[in-house]
Amino acid sequence: MLQLYFFPMACSLASRIALMEAGIEARYHLVNIWTKKVIEDGGDFCEISSKGAVPVLQLANGERLTESAAVLQYIADLKPEAGLAPPPGHLDRCRLQEWLSFTGSEIHKAFLFPTFWYKDDASKAAARERIGKSVSIAADHLANRDYLVGDRFTVADAHLAWALLLFRRAGVEVSNWPSLVEYLARIQTRPQVKAAIETEMALRKTMAV
Amino acid sequence: MLQLYFFPMACSLASRIALMEAGIEARYHLVNIWTKKVIEDGGDFCEISSKGAVPVLQLANGERLTESAAVLQYIADLKPEAGLAPPPGHLDRCRLQEWLSFTGSEIHKAFLFPTFWYKDDASKAAARERIGKSVSIAADHLANRDYLVGDRFTVADAHLAWALLLFRRAGVEVSNWPSLVEYLARIQTRPQVKAAIETEMALRKTMAV
Repeated sequence: MLQLYFFPMACSLASRIALMEAGIEARYHLVNIWTKKVIEDGGDFCEISSKGAVPVLQLANGERLTESAAVLQYIADLKPEAGLAPPPGHLDRCRLQEWLSFTGSEIHKAFLFPTFWYKDDASKAAARERIGKSVSIAADHLANRDYLVGDRFTVADAHLAWALLLFRRAGVEVSNWPSLVEYLARIQTRPQVKAAIETEMALRKTMAV
Repeated sequence: MLQLYFFPMACSLASRIALMEAGIEARYHLVNIWTKKVIEDGGDFCEISSKGAVPVLQLANGERLTESAAVLQYIADLKPEAGLAPPPGHLDRCRLQEWLSFTGSEIHKAFLFPTFWYKDDASKAAARERIGKSVSIAADHLANRDYLVGDRFTVADAHLAWALLLFRRAGVEVSNWPSLVEYLARIQTRPQVKAAIETEMALRKTMAV
């Protein structure tokens, strides 16, 4: 059985959504991302992955895969019939990879990460200032379409929707981009997305700040 | 014919290396990344891609693809016989995606980008402080292997080698990680890699700082 190491409402939420949307049963291991402990047994999370970051997906063969872009495509390809990623070889698969990269690098790491990392206001402000342009690219793309790639929900949507959910905590109002407000609402009407978020929100409250 | 929009020694270098390693002829458009002008005709680069960032690969059908992770896999899949990416469906393809994501997000955007963005020393230092851990993960992985994925050069190596070349300009000494010094030397013995770097280094000198 697949095993997902996660921290509630961190980017591993996208992997949980992908697993649930694909109908794939998995074991979920709660990790305290600050102390780097696996909650259930107090084990050292850095022994699970030297990166010390979620998501980590343990495969059926025992190997462990990291990085949302890789984990999300792996999950999607386990259940092609769920349509969570266009098939390899299709140009839309390249578009999926393009959005996974953009969300992971331009939104998550170039913006959200610095905003949480940096302690001083000037650095936080510099990160926030840059977000407008990146977010507008996604907002413009979604102005006339329901999903990032093709005409259906994919793992790229799970990834971006997670990032948008974090914006408020990072001091950015999604309401500045009406198409993203609609998009986020649309994604959150999906029963599996809703259930995944509810599960992680409840768990998040059990963790110290 | 494929067309690559690039800025010399920026991350688009990895795409040039991939094209040359694959033996794919392409047209190269030099972009001034600061003024957002396409040099040959003074055109507005933001009309080519609203992201205003390189690489942009214009495909044979006229569509344009962005983001190194997507562009590099696209190029590799055009010439599977060059072995620049493991085939889709192979676990090593997931590993390739894992490294493309890690280099793009943890090294390029979480480190190199902030180091060049931020004007104040404290922010630059904070970005540099974080790099040790990320770089060590790559260095540990390469301690006993020649390439990032499998036993041959892939586009993931083109991507990481580019990032390592930029370290000195960002104030980080690769010499702190002996396995990376050896790796970078190994990658640079490849004739196409060498030619790509020489071409872009020469062009880089023609651009104002």
